[in-house]
Amino acid sequence: MSRVVMDWDREARTGTAEAVLCEGKSPDIVAAIVDKALDHGRRLLLTRISEHHLTVLDRPGVDLDRESGTAILGPPSSDTRAGACIVTAGSSDIGIAREASRTLAFHGYAGPVISDVGVAGLWRLMERLDEIRSHRVLIAVAGMEGALFSVLTGLVRAPVIAVPSPVGYGVARDGAAALSSALATCAAGLTVVNTGNGFGAACAAIRMLRMADPE
Amino acid sequence: MSRVVMDWDREARTGTAEAVLCEGKSPDIVAAIVDKALDHGRRLLLTRISEHHLTVLDRPGVDLDRESGTAILGPPSSDTRAGACIVTAGSSDIGIAREASRTLAFHGYAGPVISDVGVAGLWRLMERLDEIRSHRVLIAVAGMEGALFSVLTGLVRAPVIAVPSPVGYGVARDGAAALSSALATCAAGLTVVNTGNGFGAACAAIRMLRMADPE
Amino acid sequence: MSRVVMDWDREARTGTAEAVLCEGKSPDIVAAIVDKALDHGRRLLLTRISEHHLTVLDRPGVDLDRESGTAILGPPSSDTRAGACIVTAGSSDIGIAREASRTLAFHGYAGPVISDVGVAGLWRLMERLDEIRSHRVLIAVAGMEGALFSVLTGLVRAPVIAVPSPVGYGVARDGAAALSSALATCAAGLTVVNTGNGFGAACAAIRMLRMADPE
Amino acid sequence: MSRVVMDWDREARTGTAEAVLCEGKSPDIVAAIVDKALDHGRRLLLTRISEHHLTVLDRPGVDLDRESGTAILGPPSSDTRAGACIVTAGSSDIGIAREASRTLAFHGYAGPVISDVGVAGLWRLMERLDEIRSHRVLIAVAGMEGALFSVLTGLVRAPVIAVPSPVGYGVARDGAAALSSALATCAAGLTVVNTGNGFGAACAAIRMLRMADPE
Amino acid sequence: MSRVVMDWDREARTGTAEAVLCEGKSPDIVAAIVDKALDHGRRLLLTRISEHHLTVLDRPGVDLDRESGTAILGPPSSDTRAGACIVTAGSSDIGIAREASRTLAFHGYAGPVISDVGVAGLWRLMERLDEIRSHRVLIAVAGMEGALFSVLTGLVRAPVIAVPSPVGYGVARDGAAALSSALATCAAGLTVVNTGNGFGAACAAIRMLRMADPE
Amino acid sequence: MSRVVMDWDREARTGTAEAVLCEGKSPDIVAAIVDKALDHGRRLLLTRISEHHLTVLDRPGVDLDRESGTAILGPPSSDTRAGACIVTAGSSDIGIAREASRTLAFHGYAGPVISDVGVAGLWRLMERLDEIRSHRVLIAVAGMEGALFSVLTGLVRAPVIAVPSPVGYGVARDGAAALSSALATCAAGLTVVNTGNGFGAACAAIRMLRMADPE
Amino acid sequence: MSRVVMDWDREARTGTAEAVLCEGKSPDIVAAIVDKALDHGRRLLLTRISEHHLTVLDRPGVDLDRESGTAILGPPSSDTRAGACIVTAGSSDIGIAREASRTLAFHGYAGPVISDVGVAGLWRLMERLDEIRSHRVLIAVAGMEGALFSVLTGLVRAPVIAVPSPVGYGVARDGAAALSSALATCAAGLTVVNTGNGFGAACAAIRMLRMADPE
Amino acid sequence: MSRVVMDWDREARTGTAEAVLCEGKSPDIVAAIVDKALDHGRRLLLTRISEHHLTVLDRPGVDLDRESGTAILGPPSSDTRAGACIVTAGSSDIGIAREASRTLAFHGYAGPVISDVGVAGLWRLMERLDEIRSHRVLIAVAGMEGALFSVLTGLVRAPVIAVPSPVGYGVARDGAAALSSALATCAAGLTVVNTGNGFGAACAAIRMLRMADPE
Repeated sequence: MSRVVMDWDREARTGTAEAVLCEGKSPDIVAAIVDKALDHGRRLLLTRISEHHLTVLDRPGVDLDRESGTAILGPPSSDTRAGACIVTAGSSDIGIAREASRTLAFHGYAGPVISDVGVAGLWRLMERLDEIRSHRVLIAVAGMEGALFSVLTGLVRAPVIAVPSPVGYGVARDGAAALSSALATCAAGLTVVNTGNGFGAACAAIRMLRMADPE
Repeated sequence: MSRVVMDWDREARTGTAEAVLCEGKSPDIVAAIVDKALDHGRRLLLTRISEHHLTVLDRPGVDLDRESGTAILGPPSSDTRAGACIVTAGSSDIGIAREASRTLAFHGYAGPVISDVGVAGLWRLMERLDEIRSHRVLIAVAGMEGALFSVLTGLVRAPVIAVPSPVGYGVARDGAAALSSALATCAAGLTVVNTGNGFGAACAAIRMLRMADPE
Repeated sequence: MSRVVMDWDREARTGTAEAVLCEGKSPDIVAAIVDKALDHGRRLLLTRISEHHLTVLDRPGVDLDRESGTAILGPPSSDTRAGACIVTAGSSDIGIAREASRTLAFHGYAGPVISDVGVAGLWRLMERLDEIRSHRVLIAVAGMEGALFSVLTGLVRAPVIAVPSPVGYGVARDGAAALSSALATCAAGLTVVNTGNGFGAACAAIRMLRMADPE
Repeated sequence: MSRVVMDWDREARTGTAEAVLCEGKSPDIVAAIVDKALDHGRRLLLTRISEHHLTVLDRPGVDLDRESGTAILGPPSSDTRAGACIVTAGSSDIGIAREASRTLAFHGYAGPVISDVGVAGLWRLMERLDEIRSHRVLIAVAGMEGALFSVLTGLVRAPVIAVPSPVGYGVARDGAAALSSALATCAAGLTVVNTGNGFGAACAAIRMLRMADPE
Repeated sequence: MSRVVMDWDREARTGTAEAVLCEGKSPDIVAAIVDKALDHGRRLLLTRISEHHLTVLDRPGVDLDRESGTAILGPPSSDTRAGACIVTAGSSDIGIAREASRTLAFHGYAGPVISDVGVAGLWRLMERLDEIRSHRVLIAVAGMEGALFSVLTGLVRAPVIAVPSPVGYGVARDGAAALSSALATCAAGLTVVNTGNGFGAACAAIRMLRMADPE
Repeated sequence: MSRVVMDWDREARTGTAEAVLCEGKSPDIVAAIVDKALDHGRRLLLTRISEHHLTVLDRPGVDLDRESGTAILGPPSSDTRAGACIVTAGSSDIGIAREASRTLAFHGYAGPVISDVGVAGLWRLMERLDEIRSHRVLIAVAGMEGALFSVLTGLVRAPVIAVPSPVGYGVARDGAAALSSALATCAAGLTVVNTGNGFGAACAAIRMLRMADPE
Repeated sequence: MSRVVMDWDREARTGTAEAVLCEGKSPDIVAAIVDKALDHGRRLLLTRISEHHLTVLDRPGVDLDRESGTAILGPPSSDTRAGACIVTAGSSDIGIAREASRTLAFHGYAGPVISDVGVAGLWRLMERLDEIRSHRVLIAVAGMEGALFSVLTGLVRAPVIAVPSPVGYGVARDGAAALSSALATCAAGLTVVNTGNGFGAACAAIRMLRMADPE
Repeated sequence: MSRVVMDWDREARTGTAEAVLCEGKSPDIVAAIVDKALDHGRRLLLTRISEHHLTVLDRPGVDLDRESGTAILGPPSSDTRAGACIVTAGSSDIGIAREASRTLAFHGYAGPVISDVGVAGLWRLMERLDEIRSHRVLIAVAGMEGALFSVLTGLVRAPVIAVPSPVGYGVARDGAAALSSALATCAAGLTVVNTGNGFGAACAAIRMLRMADPE
């Protein structure tokens, strides 16, 4: 099997650590990477874990979260600073929200989730607006038409990172409508990551937080 | 040149009259159709008129509106009943809104326009909400990400017809993002017509109005 | 697990109730929503149910319909007013037709289905035309090329709502051809909802019916 | 300039002659091809001619038709056998219909055109149905949603060749909806050529006619 | 369950019989249709059968062919006239070729298959060319880039019907490259049906054969 | 003409001001907006100006920049704080880079541009890396395959905002390849705005800068 | 079952042998081809093998590699000349890399693999650059945004063949982003094969190597 | 105006020189680059020149070729080694063929063009096959369905580089069908560059030639 080369100093160089995208990797390769981390005494974040990876990940020392498909190898982060708030349109978005939240936690930042504030019932968002406005960075997760991205961005001062989610069918399949909606937004100040990329959104949020609050 | 066959009894059969889609027709064909209408003593609505059609349409008895690219041949409708309210996200949507409004007028219905209520500044929509709620049918015109469609539909009881508009660039080009946003909406009760089809939206609205208020 | 926030007053605000889109939700989340409805003594409509949701839905007090993937929690609607007629091109469209029909029933409207009137054998549509014309609102369900949408709309006065269905293969896969056909129609008065969205079509129909026949 | 190599024996080998697709060719190259035909004493069909080609084509001995963008070099065909009937949905389709008709004429077949029989007013098609059924091969030209293709094919015994036309906007732009509609048809017996390819449809029709009526 | 309406006189009207597209239909609906055919004493062709339909189709009196996913209910056609030759690029195309061949047989026409003549080894096509040229109508089945369609059409006089097949991966997935290749062909005289539609190609061939050889 | 409604308090609410997207607006509408701003004594940023808008914008008090298609009405910002650095792949990206730079300037932030550091000659990026690393927020503009986005993000700690640019042809047309490249990045910490949206990137950068450096 | 026709002299004619693409072929057809090769005493390469083919391929004399989904029938190549180096972005690309490597080996060329040199940690590529530069032809395998293709091509003199890999999700699904990135590259000298086509890349490399080092 | 940074040592590093893609650059930027080259005494290749660039390029010392949209600044290459043969399907492909040919010439390689050998008349290709086989590297340029790519590759031993050309309409528009056809080829040994990229194809050919024939 191929030699695995980890980029251990990525966190030092860029502010966030390399994570292992398990989707598309055989359990053998995932196991080899976990072994390598154990050899180096490294903490490790793994994302997009499927059922067939569980045989190599369901063991002591691994904090496994099936709802988000993530696993964390090694001890929890020693401190938790104020981080980014994750806002979701519906309860189907919770897996992606948790991927973001756990990525923040892995790096020592809080990632509270406010869910079910989609625009079909606008009062739900309005009711939580003061709480949402109290956070320095926002991550919004929404599928279907993704109208939440624009409405939210037009109401707050914080940077908003949109994570389209693959919730919906027909033209919304695979998050296609939510993605184009986020990119086409009329609300300046919104930026976007790939559909389902809660990890990437959290890493971008961490770069912003580190800028404001340097070590 | 080819024989033109008009469907003169379409209004009797379906409630709205055949209109002439000028886009893609040579001025010669448009002139032939106008002549045929004059021969039959018919009123006629023409849509999507471009500069090169003006030579055959800029004449007495034709009510020409360049902003919407429409022309009406013959006298105005004799009465004006309460119709549909047309709501737009921005001032770039006004041409399409007027195509809908003039189609309503051609058939004897009012089509007031409320413009510039896009969601980036949500207060603009909220400020007009009582007025909007007073109408029996709503037509919403929006480009870019079309978030207005879902937000509006979630706030009112009337049927809402979305007309995506080709306002925007990148993924919003040709109204692509607004169209998929309208179809993928999380707000049930919204229906959609083709991008830019103010005429079709108005005809659908008229069918609804006629159902409620039969002759 | 995340806090579920239902929009209980949606029916009062918009005329139709919030439904639970089960596709993309884990059985745990669906169960939590059902429990919440029971706690509040609310009726509830659930759509796009798959096999793995059945363990939490196949219980007393739930009216489960596998053909349409819908479930209704609580007693049937107390009265049934004249509603919308649902017309299908072929017998593969019946699941979506029933989703629309049961959504109408949930809200107290009749939703009779006339199936198998696709245009390849035009006599089938013509034979039922008088019956179809007797309804105030029509919902048309068709896959493949969706020619039924335009032909039907050209023959009737009622508003027609097109529901493209994911019937077919090749360019018809996932209802893509039927969707573009519905949007591109030459027959004014047709509006469209997302592919497979029988629920949304019924909600739009209800808004139209309520306009004509207010409480 | 590059050496032009004509496939003069294509008609002997395949039943129809090579034509010159002018779109994308500079006037210089078109002129070189015309000169080569004159040198060889060959008749020649040129298609998709634009304004900038006219300087080299508007001369004696060339039968130029601007509506279809075609030119025929050399004498007309000596005889005209019964050929294919060309049916169009609307008057915007006439250019493509004439490209087909003139291709048939170039090869010695009649190509009568029946226009304006689109399905929004179904009676127009029904009124001409006996006449349409009297032809051995049918070519149907339609844009927008192209519902005519399926309806026509379901009513006749002759082979029907669909030519999607780039009439319409939004999802119908460039004939996209009509093309997918033709391919996804529920009416078996329909075959399709590329959007706008009246020439190709006529060549296919000629192959069919030659099979039935061999020299 | 919904009322099934068969178009029994389709063969009389159009030359080919209605077939049952099983894909997307539940076994219950397929069984209902088979029962209806037995009730009326009708022969019946069923296409795109999957594993889950077998329980209702694997019984006496049904000629089932798993390779093509087709079944024929009732006695074989009483005579077999010279029909169309089916040419395939590779051995992965054989299922679709057999769907076409069995559709021809159902209607009383021969449908011999010549397979594995793809253009990567052009000698294979050239070796069979005389045999191929002896047929009146050709059906070509090819996936990947579908170059066979154009090469074959340029070498013969018969009408050629292209059936793109979903063979290949990447840009060839689902037959996408073969379909666009067939439509974009430089070889006039080729027409196209939907990807995988062997049934439709055979029906079009039968219309052509009937024209040449009327009852 | 339609009533124009400006969202004057957007800057107070969200941190950045509403700008006027001139693309798709008639000169009359643009003039009406400018007049309204003058009436209110407001500064105004206008973007995506084309030739036909110049008649209403080329006047005293308007700072017009043709390379970026932007105009600023009113006095320059009174102070200039350290802002975001804009990095471009090639000299074709300069118009978009300047749209971002001028948006920053309008809001009182510096927006220095480092151009021509595309990855085909990696040494150009490496040579400027220390300078690039000295900025708190980075905006990267690139067309073609957009490889710069990932390479840059992997080398720095600052948040990076990708602006795909419509530079290139074939699959790169309209920035399609660069956009998907930015979204699909393997380098966590990158976020994306719509193709060509230098304005939106700058507004997002300002939100980040304001978070770090609050008034 | 259909007659299988192998192109046994393809290697003599083109430099590389015909291989059997197993995807889309039933185990019966694959078995028939293997039998034919055994009958002719031919070596044979089989690609894209799935689980269901194993029953006919897991037998003596077949060198089966599950990671790449390839099998080689017959003895290994007698000699191994210096060949092409295969470079991968990540460890998910290893299956495709091995398909290329084994295709090279089948034809008598070495195909060493250097993996995990993606651009998010650029030092990994730089560390191996001298080794990479020592090869005459390079094959690069990358998914997600495929930035490796351009960066590598800008650093070396050898021809580089890009193989997009279907690694990633959202816009990267099925290798879509990597494919467009490879084609849109700003680094001249890169050529591309279909997503996942390690076999094709190796065959192209062999043609290049044979040109430089003829028999 | 922005600082232009040329990668002058690209030829030393990669074997081919940086060229200036003029499409998307203003005449001012092109002029600045030309001036920089003159200052450094460098030869320069410019590609995709449009009419509006001519004012700054039509001057002594510039070898301008309008058919290919290329210009060469500086003296011709001192020697001409045997290079790559460029094969085109039709005479519309000649501009792209000449872009490749002139790129070869700029670098000191011959680039003879064989045109008009498209597969609709296969004899044209066969007639020139011996001549084509005499070249070490082949570049094939084709639009429409691009069948030439596969047919040619199956007949020769040299590496073949496909350049899809934007010749055709409908599904062939912008070279879309030819591009997917080239990538999906059944003929191993073909590699592909972006649609219209004659320059890139030539640079890849030069890398191959340099490998075989090192300085």
